[in-house]
Amino acid sequence: MKFTTCSTPVRYAETDQMKFVHHSNYLRYFEMARLEWLSSLGVSYAKMEQEGILMPVVRANVEYKTPLFFGDHFSVEVVLVKTPKATLEFNYILRNQKEELICQGNTVLAFLSPNTNRPMRCPESLVRLFDSEKA
Amino acid sequence: MKFTTCSTPVRYAETDQMKFVHHSNYLRYFEMARLEWLSSLGVSYAKMEQEGILMPVVRANVEYKTPLFFGDHFSVEVVLVKTPKATLEFNYILRNQKEELICQGNTVLAFLSPNTNRPMRCPESLVRLFDSEKA
Amino acid sequence: MKFTTCSTPVRYAETDQMKFVHHSNYLRYFEMARLEWLSSLGVSYAKMEQEGILMPVVRANVEYKTPLFFGDHFSVEVVLVKTPKATLEFNYILRNQKEELICQGNTVLAFLSPNTNRPMRCPESLVRLFDSEKA
Amino acid sequence: MKFTTCSTPVRYAETDQMKFVHHSNYLRYFEMARLEWLSSLGVSYAKMEQEGILMPVVRANVEYKTPLFFGDHFSVEVVLVKTPKATLEFNYILRNQKEELICQGNTVLAFLSPNTNRPMRCPESLVRLFDSEKA
Repeated sequence: MKFTTCSTPVRYAETDQMKFVHHSNYLRYFEMARLEWLSSLGVSYAKMEQEGILMPVVRANVEYKTPLFFGDHFSVEVVLVKTPKATLEFNYILRNQKEELICQGNTVLAFLSPNTNRPMRCPESLVRLFDSEKA
Repeated sequence: MKFTTCSTPVRYAETDQMKFVHHSNYLRYFEMARLEWLSSLGVSYAKMEQEGILMPVVRANVEYKTPLFFGDHFSVEVVLVKTPKATLEFNYILRNQKEELICQGNTVLAFLSPNTNRPMRCPESLVRLFDSEKA
Repeated sequence: MKFTTCSTPVRYAETDQMKFVHHSNYLRYFEMARLEWLSSLGVSYAKMEQEGILMPVVRANVEYKTPLFFGDHFSVEVVLVKTPKATLEFNYILRNQKEELICQGNTVLAFLSPNTNRPMRCPESLVRLFDSEKA
Repeated sequence: MKFTTCSTPVRYAETDQMKFVHHSNYLRYFEMARLEWLSSLGVSYAKMEQEGILMPVVRANVEYKTPLFFGDHFSVEVVLVKTPKATLEFNYILRNQKEELICQGNTVLAFLSPNTNRPMRCPESLVRLFDSEKA
């Protein structure tokens, strides 16, 4: 089950003096996509945090194919790649308004209790929800 | 009593496609300077927050004189301008490695209780400390 | 003539450990709003830059009224406040999804030639366009 | 030949509401480390760009081990891992002030001509310099 975000304009402040988007910003775009995907499933990450579940990124990789420029619009395709257990794994494909492949990546997220700062298992209700969404 | 920060190199990611530092980053530089000043007085802002005092910015202004480039180093001069009561007010002067004036600014900070999200008075111990430091 | 941007979700990476949007990000939101306004007039800032006109911010001020949180959506109202000459001046009002006032601000922009890094006058075609838009 | 950067304080704006450094910022820290390493070899990346060599990141990966907090200081160990040809590959280890491993990563950089936006070979003078530095 893949999810594709809305088309989003590149912000001026996201470029650097190479005159295209700074490579660190793609991790922020992936995060936006992941949270928009969660939202689309009816899950508010803001509320999850208030209830004591943090989901930090524990591994990330990105392959940059071609630059994204100010003035461009992009969308991100997100796929959950495994049955969630202690971690969630996502693949991302980011394309510009001409459907050109800009970059692709992968992140692994853990579940963390903010009180103890210790890993925790994915809550059962989320396992069921995510399970029906995995690729 | 003015305080001047260490010389800090401009980071590549802080530039934008105009090929100099993005104007929003100066507010981050002012913040760094303010927290380094606090530190120099023996006050850890990290600890203040743990003890329940937040200091959000409630007003900021910046005048940009000349660009700051990747490869430049800058320092910030900070001055506390008034006896602290409900707010703290600071002036900043940012210069590059040639002592050229890059920008100057001013911020006002309030004291906020994170539990109630309501303004609070500056703790008495800080009033005394800051009072002896004001311009 | 005022222009109001689309509703935009707050990004997670825009918060800091105070648990709301970092104050420097509002200058980025104002920039987005200003460029969206330009776009709405049929002017591409990306193209302006390619044709040799930079518009750096030379003065900015912001008054922060109440925090904006992750999960919130905001829109920005932009008004051009004066007949453009050597500079352009804008007022901004930023509100959340409940129409609460989050912050308001003002920026002044100059026209700069990227080749000489020297100020230049606003091109005549833009003067005419902007003139019909001023408040 | 490994190079270790100066100790750098975490900036407040680099945290997010999880109360530690946002994961995208480590790519910025790696970049700082890489450019400081270049500098230590007597190479100014600012000058390289002026002479027409861009070095965009084409692949990045990061493994996050434990959080880095506001108030912490970190240093980055950088190692060039291969003889440079069309690309440069670096390994990074980032540690806090207690020498705890915060994260490790790897980036691959290409050489790009800004005029054509096309890949180019590493200039011969850099090959010789980097060659003597590789692990």
